[in-house]
Amino acid sequence: MKKIVYLILFIGISLNMNAANPDSLVVNKIYMEALADNTAYTNLEYLCTQIGGRLCGSVESEKAIAWAKKCLEEMALDTVYLQKLMVSHWTRGEKEVAYIKFNSAEIKNVHVCALGESVATPKNGITAEVVEVKSFEELIKLGKENISGKIVFYNRAMDPSKFITFEAYGGAAGQRFVGAVKAAEFGAVGVVVRSLTLLSDFTTHTGIMKYDSAGINIPAVAISTKDADLLSESLQTDKHLLFYMKTSCQFFSEKESYNVIGEIKGTESPNEIMVVGGHLDSWDNGQGAHDDGVGVVQSIEVLRLFKKLGVKPKHTIRVVLFMDEECHQRGGKKYAEIVKLKNEKHIVAIESDGGGFTPNGFSFDTSQDTLNAIKKWSSLLLNYGLYSLTKGHSGVDIGFLKGLGFPLIGLETDSQRYFDFQHAETDTFDKVNKRQMQLGSAAMASLIYLIDKNGIQ
Amino acid sequence: MKKIVYLILFIGISLNMNAANPDSLVVNKIYMEALADNTAYTNLEYLCTQIGGRLCGSVESEKAIAWAKKCLEEMALDTVYLQKLMVSHWTRGEKEVAYIKFNSAEIKNVHVCALGESVATPKNGITAEVVEVKSFEELIKLGKENISGKIVFYNRAMDPSKFITFEAYGGAAGQRFVGAVKAAEFGAVGVVVRSLTLLSDFTTHTGIMKYDSAGINIPAVAISTKDADLLSESLQTDKHLLFYMKTSCQFFSEKESYNVIGEIKGTESPNEIMVVGGHLDSWDNGQGAHDDGVGVVQSIEVLRLFKKLGVKPKHTIRVVLFMDEECHQRGGKKYAEIVKLKNEKHIVAIESDGGGFTPNGFSFDTSQDTLNAIKKWSSLLLNYGLYSLTKGHSGVDIGFLKGLGFPLIGLETDSQRYFDFQHAETDTFDKVNKRQMQLGSAAMASLIYLIDKNGIQ
Repeated sequence: MKKIVYLILFIGISLNMNAANPDSLVVNKIYMEALADNTAYTNLEYLCTQIGGRLCGSVESEKAIAWAKKCLEEMALDTVYLQKLMVSHWTRGEKEVAYIKFNSAEIKNVHVCALGESVATPKNGITAEVVEVKSFEELIKLGKENISGKIVFYNRAMDPSKFITFEAYGGAAGQRFVGAVKAAEFGAVGVVVRSLTLLSDFTTHTGIMKYDSAGINIPAVAISTKDADLLSESLQTDKHLLFYMKTSCQFFSEKESYNVIGEIKGTESPNEIMVVGGHLDSWDNGQGAHDDGVGVVQSIEVLRLFKKLGVKPKHTIRVVLFMDEECHQRGGKKYAEIVKLKNEKHIVAIESDGGGFTPNGFSFDTSQDTLNAIKKWSSLLLNYGLYSLTKGHSGVDIGFLKGLGFPLIGLETDSQRYFDFQHAETDTFDKVNKRQMQLGSAAMASLIYLIDKNGIQ
Repeated sequence: MKKIVYLILFIGISLNMNAANPDSLVVNKIYMEALADNTAYTNLEYLCTQIGGRLCGSVESEKAIAWAKKCLEEMALDTVYLQKLMVSHWTRGEKEVAYIKFNSAEIKNVHVCALGESVATPKNGITAEVVEVKSFEELIKLGKENISGKIVFYNRAMDPSKFITFEAYGGAAGQRFVGAVKAAEFGAVGVVVRSLTLLSDFTTHTGIMKYDSAGINIPAVAISTKDADLLSESLQTDKHLLFYMKTSCQFFSEKESYNVIGEIKGTESPNEIMVVGGHLDSWDNGQGAHDDGVGVVQSIEVLRLFKKLGVKPKHTIRVVLFMDEECHQRGGKKYAEIVKLKNEKHIVAIESDGGGFTPNGFSFDTSQDTLNAIKKWSSLLLNYGLYSLTKGHSGVDIGFLKGLGFPLIGLETDSQRYFDFQHAETDTFDKVNKRQMQLGSAAMASLIYLIDKNGIQ
């Protein structure tokens, strides 16, 4: 419990703040307001539960664009507008069906979902024998004679012994992304990919896959980790078991879609822009809560915090809610294209796309000199648990701004639970802790404030 | 998502480790083993779901003692034994009932639970008018004429704007702990205390309360935060509404109970002891998962990690699973009493009682010199997110060892979700993320390893 002790220790004792440091006082106000106010959480609830999963091209994505625009308009920002782009339009169709058919004729249903932008199976599904592999090397070794006419089952698990879960993801995600292309080269008729999660459960995790224009497009599904284990065990004793899968995905013509943008104009240098953003689209199977409803409402919240606290930025703060991060990143590409076309000057861009977990710092795609300059705020940020200020990846959407000479920054969060929910039907509003999400808004607002006020040098 | 980028970035790239540093290699092995193995999680599942809530004196606490002893015995430790002590024995009895009765005669049921070691209401319950206060100052100001014969409703909320949730707890916990005593002084017939959580929901949070031997003992319950808000709003319009509450708690005679202890003997200095522990008892309404099943299984896991990795400690590692932390800390007191009696030499004690959330460091009840000496491992620990090495509270149980000249250390975790579950019916196994819990075991094992191998100087 530790409780009564805290009662005695903490009454009236506050954070180790230097009261003489005005930056420290403003950052403290940002945190207090972010933690005490429910706007961002209420926004997330609406986006997730009233609109839901919002894959690019879907009706839900259109509703999300309209909702986000209205949200920004109601905040009385200086500018709110949509930025047009084209997106692909793929639908999952009916709930996928799959089962293992043992030689005993026994049937066991398993949980699968089509991978993003997979082709459908034939109308009556596919039934075939299964070849299990854990790497592309194994696939090549097996060769056409062992694979042709069969379903390839990619069963490489994320390595739980990795401290950084994204490393574990990196070691296994290739099978989802290009597994179908590689299996088709050997004559496979479909692929089943182990869901990319560190949990052992029955959830299915979708995500984008890619075909090779030169090859044959075979259907691909993700299978839950528990069902993957069952299939693997079953194959040990029943090598010729059959696997049935049926999906009914469809492609439609490209559609118009939009990035949603809003601004608070800078008082001194309105043409110098600080971007804060997340992506508005999400996978269709869940509610896109952690990925990336959280990034959307946090980015909007940054602007609300400035307005509510009466902090007038010297440079323009621009929130950008990107479309189509999950499939082809057309939103990020379009935004960068327009920035270059208009020759807009940016001084920083921050993206939140790591889920609504406790933030632990920022990842900087910038020079070491710039990072060193930012580290002058280390001790202030450390008061709020932001201990990690390192060079690394920033964000998929803002990544297209690389090379324009300003720092690209990713909000870093505790990654331990990220893959419990990523791209799964369980990525829903109720999985987001209000406070952990609010801390992300406060972290981004604080860094934007510090950069706006003091510059990076 | 950030996914494909990580795929490219991370394949084959590992933690920033100095391969030439053997400590760094061992710590890495500890983390890998802790994250890849399921023993601690399986132990937690058993303790929570097969035994459940285990208040001192209960049958469940006896089962937990037997289970823990067996667990340690099956690990083939050098020593496993029970340490006898006496505990109080209080039971909640039947599920509590409470409702608001409006002047319109309308009735609204509300969620309450008896506070720990509260007396029961009379058999038919209590019905009385309600006086709401948010502080003891308000209570005193209202005085006997406004309070006598009524139920005092303590509705001070935890302050959400505090970054450190234990601060918010500290600002509100007094009403639970001594609220009944203070209200009784003014003739109140019962107290209703707002549940100590930052969530807005229908869960009820119990916790120990204390009577004053000189005063009248009046019954006390915790009410869910949503019901507290309802009651407060209702009182605005219906000042004379009635509140009904019925509890059937009982006190029994003191009982024998036990701390459970196991050891790996040190190879060089077996008489110098390093304690790692948590508390085996928990509240009865939930499963005692975060508080403190996690601390129990993590402490056991520290010894398993040493054995599994073949790391033979120079000093004795002793796991102590304390009884009765929640009520009167008899386990902690007894352990310290025996240490002094036997004049046992300890070199460190670490307690885990902050829940199974991602660890962010340690809190040291020791001198600044000792803390400075420990900080030589800062950069190594930082690789695993252990950024916070500060002076502060260690643990309730090991706290009784204070003054014996060795450092007392508390495992610190991300506190943002701690009060979502503390002492509530929702403190159950399914609320614990396996990896976050495993990281706590690894953090404690790593610090024990570093202290054992290098000493603190």
